[in-house]
Amino acid sequence: MNIDSYLECIQQKEAQVKAWKHHDPQQVRQQIRTANPGGSLAGLAVGVKDIFDTADMPTGYGSSAYEGHQPDRDSWAVQRLRAAGAIIMGKTVTTEFAYTHAGPTRNPHNLAHTPGGSSSGSAAAVAAGMVPVALGTQTGGSVIRPSAYCGVIGFKPTHGAISLQGVCPLSPSMDTLGIHAATTELARQVFSVLCPRQHRDSSFAREPLRLAWFPGPLASQAQPQAIQLLQSVREKIETSGLGTVTDLEFGSDHALGLSESNRIIMRYEAARAHRDVFSTRRDLLGAATVGLIETGLRTTDAQYEQAMQQVERAHAAFMAATMGLDAVLTLSSPGEAPRFEEGTGSSSFNQAWTTLGAPCLTLPAGKGQAGLPLGIQLIARPGEDHRLLDIGQRIQQTCLNT
Amino acid sequence: MNIDSYLECIQQKEAQVKAWKHHDPQQVRQQIRTANPGGSLAGLAVGVKDIFDTADMPTGYGSSAYEGHQPDRDSWAVQRLRAAGAIIMGKTVTTEFAYTHAGPTRNPHNLAHTPGGSSSGSAAAVAAGMVPVALGTQTGGSVIRPSAYCGVIGFKPTHGAISLQGVCPLSPSMDTLGIHAATTELARQVFSVLCPRQHRDSSFAREPLRLAWFPGPLASQAQPQAIQLLQSVREKIETSGLGTVTDLEFGSDHALGLSESNRIIMRYEAARAHRDVFSTRRDLLGAATVGLIETGLRTTDAQYEQAMQQVERAHAAFMAATMGLDAVLTLSSPGEAPRFEEGTGSSSFNQAWTTLGAPCLTLPAGKGQAGLPLGIQLIARPGEDHRLLDIGQRIQQTCLNT
Repeated sequence: MNIDSYLECIQQKEAQVKAWKHHDPQQVRQQIRTANPGGSLAGLAVGVKDIFDTADMPTGYGSSAYEGHQPDRDSWAVQRLRAAGAIIMGKTVTTEFAYTHAGPTRNPHNLAHTPGGSSSGSAAAVAAGMVPVALGTQTGGSVIRPSAYCGVIGFKPTHGAISLQGVCPLSPSMDTLGIHAATTELARQVFSVLCPRQHRDSSFAREPLRLAWFPGPLASQAQPQAIQLLQSVREKIETSGLGTVTDLEFGSDHALGLSESNRIIMRYEAARAHRDVFSTRRDLLGAATVGLIETGLRTTDAQYEQAMQQVERAHAAFMAATMGLDAVLTLSSPGEAPRFEEGTGSSSFNQAWTTLGAPCLTLPAGKGQAGLPLGIQLIARPGEDHRLLDIGQRIQQTCLNT
Repeated sequence: MNIDSYLECIQQKEAQVKAWKHHDPQQVRQQIRTANPGGSLAGLAVGVKDIFDTADMPTGYGSSAYEGHQPDRDSWAVQRLRAAGAIIMGKTVTTEFAYTHAGPTRNPHNLAHTPGGSSSGSAAAVAAGMVPVALGTQTGGSVIRPSAYCGVIGFKPTHGAISLQGVCPLSPSMDTLGIHAATTELARQVFSVLCPRQHRDSSFAREPLRLAWFPGPLASQAQPQAIQLLQSVREKIETSGLGTVTDLEFGSDHALGLSESNRIIMRYEAARAHRDVFSTRRDLLGAATVGLIETGLRTTDAQYEQAMQQVERAHAAFMAATMGLDAVLTLSSPGEAPRFEEGTGSSSFNQAWTTLGAPCLTLPAGKGQAGLPLGIQLIARPGEDHRLLDIGQRIQQTCLNT
């Protein structure tokens, strides 16, 4: 599809979906005239979450406190995509500072429901067909969850694999650039441009997959349909001969501890990253953001240190548990997207993996009782991003008919 | 040593060495009263390169254009060290934007010589005994080279292993936090706090080292004493039974190409990171910085793309060449520190490894003809940071008598 088709789609659907904080068709056409025609992403239409600085578009970080803020330079990732010939279609709606205070975006599958957060607009824009790819970020579950809710591919690479220079911080210990995409191959193309230091192992495409099963300690809180779908995918993997699935030897205490550490580290670091705006313009911040910063300012150095040490122990346990395995199979979210007025949903099935820094991939796998998308999530060892994408593609081809 | 001894040392030597851009003993004593006494780095005196934002100390990025600039929050790394109980002793002199326009710092081993750059003050402060540890950054050779020139441990971890949130960018594709330290164990302690997602493999301490020899395509331009020293270390490793040293199968074309890509990527990205100050306050910038930005603005998207693709190919070749090896043994710098008026020295022996994102370690290994320190450099595969530190410690114990 060319840029005109995407521009047309945005024009048709934006009034309902509300995916964009900033979108100017004239500015898009101007970019087409100057973009690098020989770049490896030449002509690719990309949406960018509105916490990535852009020199030519306002960047409000989802906050009334930064309404109309105009950075003087592009974030590194945006600059890198432009150099590769991509066309920045605009800035997508984000929750405030990529936490939970939501914007107006609706789920394209059912406008009464949330697209999830915090990368709300990026996931919705891809789901609505407005762009084939959009950038997001994940600190708890902000790429995987909205991608699952919206029925698109969501890929959160290894922590640190891609520079976040020029991206509004929430919690730098865990903040990670993510990619929402219409296809796994597109996610890989964008990842390859943003991370030239990882490589695809072509011999892996023929080896049987060694997967681990870990619905996790919170599985009982998930929608039964989500668990059933995950089980059916497991059966297809096994019966098709694609691979084996064994139980992951990773204690619930580690997984629950990582979720708790995720919350402690996030509020401690977010409070320090946003202390200034909190003290000068608190009245412009959403209640959830104010609560996060207040709690974070009360979190002590000792509590933060303990959380970091828990991460270190759990990471060692995860690396031991996944030795010789290709990926972990688990849920992407507790179930379908909640109704819009109920908030952006829970990141409880994402926090542990984000905190470990492990790459995560969600694949659209079916629909739930309400007719909304459900995903399955795959987790690989840090640094094995291309392998994770390979696994995702093989599962899609053999088991998901997508 | 306690903080008082370091304060005294700074007072005694600073007039000659000029390592500090900002140092206020009163402020240091105030920190001691409020620091986390139970933290994993409790009471550790740390110097911080003046491109890391600090909420309580001015941060001038080594530039007259930012003289007296006061950030409103700490960079992530500084915040993390403070939470662990470290005492920030002040801001150390950096070249402008961590490129080459030098500050006043002198080499503590001989005040007529440069300490190297860009982390000039951090390396000199550790060498002078003013602090046991200091933070630096490396984009070309800015941690390894000054550490080698000043005769201290210099450790540049894997690219992306530690967040650079709140650090002035030069080239985010390659910018990496580094640690200058009096001992390898101190470097490890600080690294462990900044990166909880890597672990030491205790069984490695007993295995014979499998090292690769790569003086590199520019070895003929190095001082003969530096090469002789490297050869003598190789012999000690082999004769002591510590390990084997084989030739690295990594083409000169890849190594030279990486150096060239380092320069292209750096100027392209630096020009875009600093375009604003260049257009508004160019007269306040050093000539080297102006030259970098002018050249970078003329560098095309296509040239930048080609450099990135060269990095991708060379990285694949490096990973293949180092399969089954523990580390590469090479030079840290072309030789001893040049005289002060000749500039901060050459990063030609560092650019390739930085561009690959590989962890690098320099160990003080002897002295050259002018009586100034010489180092040896070890390079590991990305992600193998603790293994690299282990190798360094074993070589120090067995071969370097340090």
